[in-house]
Amino acid sequence: MCRWMAYKGKSIYLEDWILNSEHSLIEQSKSADLSQYEVNGDGFGVGWYGNKPEPGLFKSIRPAWNNTNLKSLAGHVSSPLFLAHVRAATGTPIQETNSHPFQYKNWLMVHNGLIHEFEVVEKELIEQVDAKYFRHIDGSTDSEILFYLLLSNGLQDDVHLAIQKTIQLVEAIASNHNIQYGLRMTLGISDGKSLWAIRYSSSDHSATLFYSLEDDEHSHKLLIVSEPLDHCLRCWATVDENTILHFDENNKMSLMAL
Amino acid sequence: MCRWMAYKGKSIYLEDWILNSEHSLIEQSKSADLSQYEVNGDGFGVGWYGNKPEPGLFKSIRPAWNNTNLKSLAGHVSSPLFLAHVRAATGTPIQETNSHPFQYKNWLMVHNGLIHEFEVVEKELIEQVDAKYFRHIDGSTDSEILFYLLLSNGLQDDVHLAIQKTIQLVEAIASNHNIQYGLRMTLGISDGKSLWAIRYSSSDHSATLFYSLEDDEHSHKLLIVSEPLDHCLRCWATVDENTILHFDENNKMSLMAL
Amino acid sequence: MCRWMAYKGKSIYLEDWILNSEHSLIEQSKSADLSQYEVNGDGFGVGWYGNKPEPGLFKSIRPAWNNTNLKSLAGHVSSPLFLAHVRAATGTPIQETNSHPFQYKNWLMVHNGLIHEFEVVEKELIEQVDAKYFRHIDGSTDSEILFYLLLSNGLQDDVHLAIQKTIQLVEAIASNHNIQYGLRMTLGISDGKSLWAIRYSSSDHSATLFYSLEDDEHSHKLLIVSEPLDHCLRCWATVDENTILHFDENNKMSLMAL
Amino acid sequence: MCRWMAYKGKSIYLEDWILNSEHSLIEQSKSADLSQYEVNGDGFGVGWYGNKPEPGLFKSIRPAWNNTNLKSLAGHVSSPLFLAHVRAATGTPIQETNSHPFQYKNWLMVHNGLIHEFEVVEKELIEQVDAKYFRHIDGSTDSEILFYLLLSNGLQDDVHLAIQKTIQLVEAIASNHNIQYGLRMTLGISDGKSLWAIRYSSSDHSATLFYSLEDDEHSHKLLIVSEPLDHCLRCWATVDENTILHFDENNKMSLMAL
Repeated sequence: MCRWMAYKGKSIYLEDWILNSEHSLIEQSKSADLSQYEVNGDGFGVGWYGNKPEPGLFKSIRPAWNNTNLKSLAGHVSSPLFLAHVRAATGTPIQETNSHPFQYKNWLMVHNGLIHEFEVVEKELIEQVDAKYFRHIDGSTDSEILFYLLLSNGLQDDVHLAIQKTIQLVEAIASNHNIQYGLRMTLGISDGKSLWAIRYSSSDHSATLFYSLEDDEHSHKLLIVSEPLDHCLRCWATVDENTILHFDENNKMSLMAL
Repeated sequence: MCRWMAYKGKSIYLEDWILNSEHSLIEQSKSADLSQYEVNGDGFGVGWYGNKPEPGLFKSIRPAWNNTNLKSLAGHVSSPLFLAHVRAATGTPIQETNSHPFQYKNWLMVHNGLIHEFEVVEKELIEQVDAKYFRHIDGSTDSEILFYLLLSNGLQDDVHLAIQKTIQLVEAIASNHNIQYGLRMTLGISDGKSLWAIRYSSSDHSATLFYSLEDDEHSHKLLIVSEPLDHCLRCWATVDENTILHFDENNKMSLMAL
Repeated sequence: MCRWMAYKGKSIYLEDWILNSEHSLIEQSKSADLSQYEVNGDGFGVGWYGNKPEPGLFKSIRPAWNNTNLKSLAGHVSSPLFLAHVRAATGTPIQETNSHPFQYKNWLMVHNGLIHEFEVVEKELIEQVDAKYFRHIDGSTDSEILFYLLLSNGLQDDVHLAIQKTIQLVEAIASNHNIQYGLRMTLGISDGKSLWAIRYSSSDHSATLFYSLEDDEHSHKLLIVSEPLDHCLRCWATVDENTILHFDENNKMSLMAL
Repeated sequence: MCRWMAYKGKSIYLEDWILNSEHSLIEQSKSADLSQYEVNGDGFGVGWYGNKPEPGLFKSIRPAWNNTNLKSLAGHVSSPLFLAHVRAATGTPIQETNSHPFQYKNWLMVHNGLIHEFEVVEKELIEQVDAKYFRHIDGSTDSEILFYLLLSNGLQDDVHLAIQKTIQLVEAIASNHNIQYGLRMTLGISDGKSLWAIRYSSSDHSATLFYSLEDDEHSHKLLIVSEPLDHCLRCWATVDENTILHFDENNKMSLMAL
């Protein structure tokens, strides 16, 4: 079980939510509250948007805590839109290319969850990735394959549709192999302008996903988290199962069924 | 709070105790049973004796779990005498030279504990290290300074005396600075022939230390651990406070007051 | 251009050829003699056979020079059969899973060379890998795909035939895409009993490959290298193009055309 | 022999000089032009000033080439004042704390050169470091000791005087030990407002140091390099031996004898 967060709003230092909050992503990586899994010490990554269309990316194969580069970077880089992820590996190697977010051009994606019995369906899924994306697959996780399936299914044109097509594809292949529950995922996705969060599972037992919206006349900002970053439980709303949350260029939020 | 183990007996694969036991050192590194501290994910190290006087050493700045090099090495290297350590850093950088064991010629040392208010006494302690050892100090931990103080106090000639002198030295400098509790440590030490384990603290509240001795006509082997490697509690004896345990060349054990 | 070496004979310390020879693999990694490429600083790997059927493996994403773990390991591990590799990346990430040797069960492979225009043929080649090997592909290099194509083509049953089939497959796919020169490779392969070395290129301009055989009544040992390990040029024989060298369980050498 | 560069002027992306110039610092790290030493593959570091008094820092134990984190960071972080360094280790471990720049509060320093026979004078030099800086010494290089000697000699109050005192101190201790040439260094130093470059050696055979100044009405910027970043030789002026170059808050340059 991995953990992730995404932020969109006025520009802030990455450290504000990655390091300095009461129950920050890095604090979470050392212990578990709502999840059953313990330690997210198998690498981390953060992607942030600045003045260029393509995001900046910093990934590591070491735990996020006690990482002096991450502390310095997060204290000196500010951004209006960023995604961060801490990893607990479930069988695939600890390498930067297996750390999230995954990037293609201006797109970023983080994932928590898994494709069930990936070893059974992996080859069929990879064959569904468009050949033009093949040279960009650098790692070996189910998460990265999900990202390139989304791209192959038109993520750059229509996020909602690409997600629906990809879910159908993964479920169909799982079904062919009599795998009962094909997919379990929360996703954070951005193109540098909008932010999307998705919560889905075959079995209606998705991993947790929360958001916190400040949306008055002075401030429009959104925080999405796999687990709350503080203990103010009323501050966090649940993203329902089979839902796609969209926070658009103008920082307006909408929720749709998948 | 770090964790460590030491083994001396007939030659076994390192993995037998580092990886494969019920509550192995690597399992321990992911969670805590008897200690208050959580995760030992800030690097690890193992030193083993083979056909040469100097031990082999493998250290890493990454967690011990999910480390494929450690798994392979521990499965292919066997040794009659080895020490292993998993680290939880308390302020000093994550770097191989801060991972235990520390080595000088044929000597190895692992440490759990700390020199209290090290920032206050560090300069005075370092000045007590013999100049000839200075070029060997590669890291920045209190543990490494302890090792070179032991060497400066004659570790190579008389282990028992070197420990007494070093404790007196650290306590005296702490006392000069009105530091109430100067030192808290369990140590594992070897010269490649004998194995020593030491449990000491200024305050009689040392970190835990256990041993398990098989000493019949067929087998003479000793396992020393900061926490039991399995849940068979009766299998583990406590090393008392202010005690030095010695397991000699002939695998005979003795216990002495410090 | 990578560099590699393989040894089979009486058991020696890995350091004898990796570190201590006049023009050792590690010395080579810092400069170039016969190759046009400069620095092999993008990771290394060594695989050695001991008492178990599966080899031990140590890989790193750091240069081989100044690596204290490699120095210690190579000085304490001895083996009658080992392969080592230093990498100069040509586009794919620096990660342990992209370092050679690649391992599957008791098999090891190192590679120097490339599949030309891999980005064009990658998807078609991967689809030729048998599904049962898919979960073992951890990295993103053409070399690793070559290894799993060899396995899919029966490497475990007939090395010579698997190499022929794999060459034909890669050449055929290249030809379909009007890629003039499909493949350029020297390979070192072992199953823990025999050692094979292969030199092949579509264009008859393969990378260099040399061997040194001591085969008198007292000693039967073979060293294979991408470049000579010392300046004694008469000591090294060239492996001809399109040739497979076999050094069998009894340390008898044979050369065959591919 | 290490290499370094420093920039001060209008804000630019770090990549402009670290990655993208004809003979960038990273290109230099793979080969040597004016120096005798080969490869600077033993880690790197970059420190940059932004909106906070303390600089951002990114260090690595891997070579600077093929480092995706460095590429991304250098492409997304812009700064009016930064220093970068690529390392060729000469005996001390490859660890982030041995990579330059060294930082204390708002101060940064990079170094090329060495304290001769450091193993002989190390203890005496360390004893001259003020106790309050001791807990900040994390690595084991002569360069880091130089930095803390400068601080102990009043760097924060008077850079010129601190350099003179530190040179005298090192030379005096060397002289006591009959070491003929005590010190050889080029230094880059900044407090976030000014930039200093120093070239000094006991023997008048300092390492090379160049600068390039654009100082017309539109642009006031300075580039300092251990070796030219392009082949336009007339574009680069030599910093004379025993000279301190100062580029002040208003981007005005002055040169003084040490």
